[in-house]
Amino acid sequence: MIKRGFASDNNAGVHPDIMKEFLAVNEGHVVGYGADPYTEQAREVFREQLGPDTEVFFVFTGTAANVLGITGVTRSWNSLIAAETAHLQQDECGAPEKFTGCKVLTSETPDGKITPALIARHMHGFGFEHHPQPGVISITQASEMGTVYTVEEIRTMAGYAHSHGMYLHMDGARLANAAVSLNLPFRSFTTDAGVDVLSFGGTKNGMMMGEAICFLKPGLSEGFKYIRKQGMQLASKMRYISAQFLAYFRNDLWILCASHANAMASMLEDKLKGISGITITQPVQSNGVFVIMPDVVAEKMMKHYFFYSWNEFTSEYRLMTSWDTTEEDIERFTFLLKQEMAAASL
Amino acid sequence: MIKRGFASDNNAGVHPDIMKEFLAVNEGHVVGYGADPYTEQAREVFREQLGPDTEVFFVFTGTAANVLGITGVTRSWNSLIAAETAHLQQDECGAPEKFTGCKVLTSETPDGKITPALIARHMHGFGFEHHPQPGVISITQASEMGTVYTVEEIRTMAGYAHSHGMYLHMDGARLANAAVSLNLPFRSFTTDAGVDVLSFGGTKNGMMMGEAICFLKPGLSEGFKYIRKQGMQLASKMRYISAQFLAYFRNDLWILCASHANAMASMLEDKLKGISGITITQPVQSNGVFVIMPDVVAEKMMKHYFFYSWNEFTSEYRLMTSWDTTEEDIERFTFLLKQEMAAASL
Amino acid sequence: MIKRGFASDNNAGVHPDIMKEFLAVNEGHVVGYGADPYTEQAREVFREQLGPDTEVFFVFTGTAANVLGITGVTRSWNSLIAAETAHLQQDECGAPEKFTGCKVLTSETPDGKITPALIARHMHGFGFEHHPQPGVISITQASEMGTVYTVEEIRTMAGYAHSHGMYLHMDGARLANAAVSLNLPFRSFTTDAGVDVLSFGGTKNGMMMGEAICFLKPGLSEGFKYIRKQGMQLASKMRYISAQFLAYFRNDLWILCASHANAMASMLEDKLKGISGITITQPVQSNGVFVIMPDVVAEKMMKHYFFYSWNEFTSEYRLMTSWDTTEEDIERFTFLLKQEMAAASL
Amino acid sequence: MIKRGFASDNNAGVHPDIMKEFLAVNEGHVVGYGADPYTEQAREVFREQLGPDTEVFFVFTGTAANVLGITGVTRSWNSLIAAETAHLQQDECGAPEKFTGCKVLTSETPDGKITPALIARHMHGFGFEHHPQPGVISITQASEMGTVYTVEEIRTMAGYAHSHGMYLHMDGARLANAAVSLNLPFRSFTTDAGVDVLSFGGTKNGMMMGEAICFLKPGLSEGFKYIRKQGMQLASKMRYISAQFLAYFRNDLWILCASHANAMASMLEDKLKGISGITITQPVQSNGVFVIMPDVVAEKMMKHYFFYSWNEFTSEYRLMTSWDTTEEDIERFTFLLKQEMAAASL
Repeated sequence: MIKRGFASDNNAGVHPDIMKEFLAVNEGHVVGYGADPYTEQAREVFREQLGPDTEVFFVFTGTAANVLGITGVTRSWNSLIAAETAHLQQDECGAPEKFTGCKVLTSETPDGKITPALIARHMHGFGFEHHPQPGVISITQASEMGTVYTVEEIRTMAGYAHSHGMYLHMDGARLANAAVSLNLPFRSFTTDAGVDVLSFGGTKNGMMMGEAICFLKPGLSEGFKYIRKQGMQLASKMRYISAQFLAYFRNDLWILCASHANAMASMLEDKLKGISGITITQPVQSNGVFVIMPDVVAEKMMKHYFFYSWNEFTSEYRLMTSWDTTEEDIERFTFLLKQEMAAASL
Repeated sequence: MIKRGFASDNNAGVHPDIMKEFLAVNEGHVVGYGADPYTEQAREVFREQLGPDTEVFFVFTGTAANVLGITGVTRSWNSLIAAETAHLQQDECGAPEKFTGCKVLTSETPDGKITPALIARHMHGFGFEHHPQPGVISITQASEMGTVYTVEEIRTMAGYAHSHGMYLHMDGARLANAAVSLNLPFRSFTTDAGVDVLSFGGTKNGMMMGEAICFLKPGLSEGFKYIRKQGMQLASKMRYISAQFLAYFRNDLWILCASHANAMASMLEDKLKGISGITITQPVQSNGVFVIMPDVVAEKMMKHYFFYSWNEFTSEYRLMTSWDTTEEDIERFTFLLKQEMAAASL
Repeated sequence: MIKRGFASDNNAGVHPDIMKEFLAVNEGHVVGYGADPYTEQAREVFREQLGPDTEVFFVFTGTAANVLGITGVTRSWNSLIAAETAHLQQDECGAPEKFTGCKVLTSETPDGKITPALIARHMHGFGFEHHPQPGVISITQASEMGTVYTVEEIRTMAGYAHSHGMYLHMDGARLANAAVSLNLPFRSFTTDAGVDVLSFGGTKNGMMMGEAICFLKPGLSEGFKYIRKQGMQLASKMRYISAQFLAYFRNDLWILCASHANAMASMLEDKLKGISGITITQPVQSNGVFVIMPDVVAEKMMKHYFFYSWNEFTSEYRLMTSWDTTEEDIERFTFLLKQEMAAASL
Repeated sequence: MIKRGFASDNNAGVHPDIMKEFLAVNEGHVVGYGADPYTEQAREVFREQLGPDTEVFFVFTGTAANVLGITGVTRSWNSLIAAETAHLQQDECGAPEKFTGCKVLTSETPDGKITPALIARHMHGFGFEHHPQPGVISITQASEMGTVYTVEEIRTMAGYAHSHGMYLHMDGARLANAAVSLNLPFRSFTTDAGVDVLSFGGTKNGMMMGEAICFLKPGLSEGFKYIRKQGMQLASKMRYISAQFLAYFRNDLWILCASHANAMASMLEDKLKGISGITITQPVQSNGVFVIMPDVVAEKMMKHYFFYSWNEFTSEYRLMTSWDTTEEDIERFTFLLKQEMAAASL
């Protein structure tokens, strides 16, 4: 039996429309490493979505998208400033430090989002050779806690970064979920809000694998093709990444997938609210629901559903929905949880 | 019009059996990052193919397979010794140096293969702190020039490495082509011949993307899971790499593909021999044919067929066949080349 | 006019006994890079001071001592845990990340010292490939805030580190000041308290330049000679670093210098306590005094005395004494400060 | 007994005038890390010697000078091109690769000097993302084999580098010996000949330790202060490096020392020519003499004099003279060698 669960949006499979696209581009020979017509089309689609100055480079993983994109706009003596919960701090096994050489400075946040006030303590030592030079502020949209930055919040962070001579990086592993949540086109809260470098994720929203590093302003991508290759992320059969993005944008497949995932999270939230003893810790703005439940209950639930502990010190757990989560999944999960909670409280 | 050509085996598409496998594993949720049943099956198949002590880690690219595998058995003060023509020297944009920190030392070779005699000049300075410590000898099977090491040659290199306290790494981006050429199972010229770390390639022989780093002796893979993650090569939806290898080994698909590619190279060689003024520079032992032709002719041919210059100083060109090369491709290419050569000699 | 000041103990010159030693070892030829009799003597002295298993390697700077020593006991996927105020976090321009590849995780502390409770939040994710593996806890003795760990506190940190399979590193840039403060031999609060790797500082206590990386347990220094050389810290004319340590330990010069510096800090503390409006923020346990004073006053004082702002957000300033600080220096400084404070309060 | 020898110019001690300078600058406090008047004076002297656009940064070792200087003008995807005998290839334990991330490409040379013809084979792949981008040509003056580039040869190399968009780096660990050999001021064969980045050595010519990284053209040193600090080479008590350079240039001490060393090499060459069976392999143009002698004789000589094997495959040995080599040293060495050669030939 293969368990269904709420562990991560990457536990879901590949959307059928993506699968079909593989077949559509599989015929014949095309030049490797991105000099093929599908990749050129995909690059064009990104320019349509994010603006005509967009330079896009496809890679395999979200970690690579973050690390290499940031490498493109830093030197090793810079520091990167992010939320303590940022993927690049918690979940990339030190890849940012290893590859960029930069120091990562973080601030605790209540909701996975950072503000100028929260990170101000890292904004010092400019020009002082003993101190790593603040180079990049990185925000995650939607955040690792499922919250979503407003356009105004992003603008503020961009202005704050730029006024210090820094760049604003956005980790958009779940960018589609944020776009749907904001009900806005990608461009409005990335390029137009002042973001410089963007990790545009596809894998978590129905693709097989495929992330796009987007430089949103002219000049930022100089030399980047060498960084990607040296970063071991240049696909030889590139057409199979590009094709996924073609399908992803065609007929707004990305909206279909992300809307569904967000709606399922919303339904899950509603159902959880009806269970006594469960605390929802974060506003549900995309496809993640964060809850506190007794560890003994969580252990029992994990026999049936795979999901992750978020904070072992506070008994907080993370429940993610995806493009293929069903209402039945949620009904069954919450039904069982209700039973277990009741049993635990006896 | 999409040109067919002889540029690289990675210009070919994905074999239909691989494509089918994607659909077969696409149902439902599985845990990400490799803790899924398909990946466990694929790991088991590798143990069957290469021996029970094999520890296998899947990555996306051949460059990553080489660089990370070598990272696993080195420290930054080591040196790597390889042929001047090695992929890791010529075609990885310095990724080995950037990621491992090691110095790469190379020797010129007549045929892409190294011998103890050819690399002896690098085998010094052991224990001398000023000098990078020779740590790994890397050979490519089949070599970048299409030649194939015999079992005995590999044994010799392994013995040479081990007697100096070094490891033998094999870049097997075209391992299947070598196996077919040798008419031997993989294990006989890898594990059993003394290879320590193997980059087992799939992409160039009909897969979409997928390379396997294989540690062939107990203890070598300690800590490697962190290296792969920090190396940005841990696939979240791992099942889609694993599944490709399942299909690859099932019904000997790999033999089918590699035999065909090798046979096409052999046919191409035969046809080229019949063209006056064309010099074949290397024995054709796998799926590559290296020829010297006039640059003006090459330029004309490149309008119809995509292929690469190998050595701009000597007018040497590389022609690669793949699992999907057809006899017609070869007939047409050689027919046209004959015409162009005749025209050029007027 | 060369200002005297309280900026740093490295603004002081070289003790005359160290100067004399240079002349004593300057005669004739000796083998370079440490294979000389003076270096062998110095290594022997370290074994006497820290225990017979001590392996010592001299380097030029405190940053190098920290970074290279830690490199010796980590792999790039490890994390380092330290106080937010640690030199390796604040003052090494990202050298730890650049050279080790490791992530640095910090905790805020009230006094520059960390405890198990303070760093517990970083002690998770063991064995989880997404998360950098906690590898080293680093403490600074005396701390960057002038406080000193007791033997018991160090033992506790060592036990905590070892129980998690980690190493305890001690940044001892001001180790002599701590020894004098504790009135204990070096060994009792380093080797015997469980420290694994020690940066033993000389520069800040009367030497010209010279730091010693001490591995305090067998086996830890394997391969380290290559790390030092690759780290660009192998002195060709090594005798001039070794000789400084010979003089440093002879006749307890280090005690003379550190006792004086500590006594001067104590005197400074006493005088500052008598000035209305000055707040001393830390217990004065070695040679640093931390005070809050109005920024306008600090600015005026800096025209006469060089010293550093410690925290621009809280108007905290750092005053360091050294082996050559005089009572007159302190009398004059506090006299002037008293005047400026009085003027500012009008 | 301390043996005198010909192992390296760094086996010699420190010139008395340098020693005196330490005392001269030892009084009182000065700001650390280079913001002191002695360092400013030393920087001014460098501008006088090398041109008004010179930006100079002091470091401790020759390896650091090479590695950090090159870091200043490269990105990790570049390659460095040098002679196979270059210090950065043979004697820095892989520090260039580890710190810069760049690939080092070398060419065999008859005399330690490279020419466009010798390195042409590495000058390809420009703009091709798979290949490290040639970024720096590094030459050593005087070379590791004791030979000296003429001004015209340097100009040629600079032109060759610049015409390919590359920089010319000069490893000047023995720059003074070259200047004396050429009988030219430093500037004429560095800045004025087109060199971009220079490692200006002091240690091998009578200093205690001290190398200067000189950027000879405007704009090249941008951000370099961070590279030096992150490279662990920022001296806290900088005045003691700066002061050495002040003494070094005052009254042409550098000429005195280097002239003497060169003259001694010349005398050694003359004496060796008179010994039957000894082959001098390189023109003696600075302070090194390279000879082939029977290994058995070399072993016997090494009991009395320390010197290094240069090439164990050809029985070539290196004999270096220094500022303190005496005529008596040479008389005795060659007298003994003559005896041993005679004994060996019986």
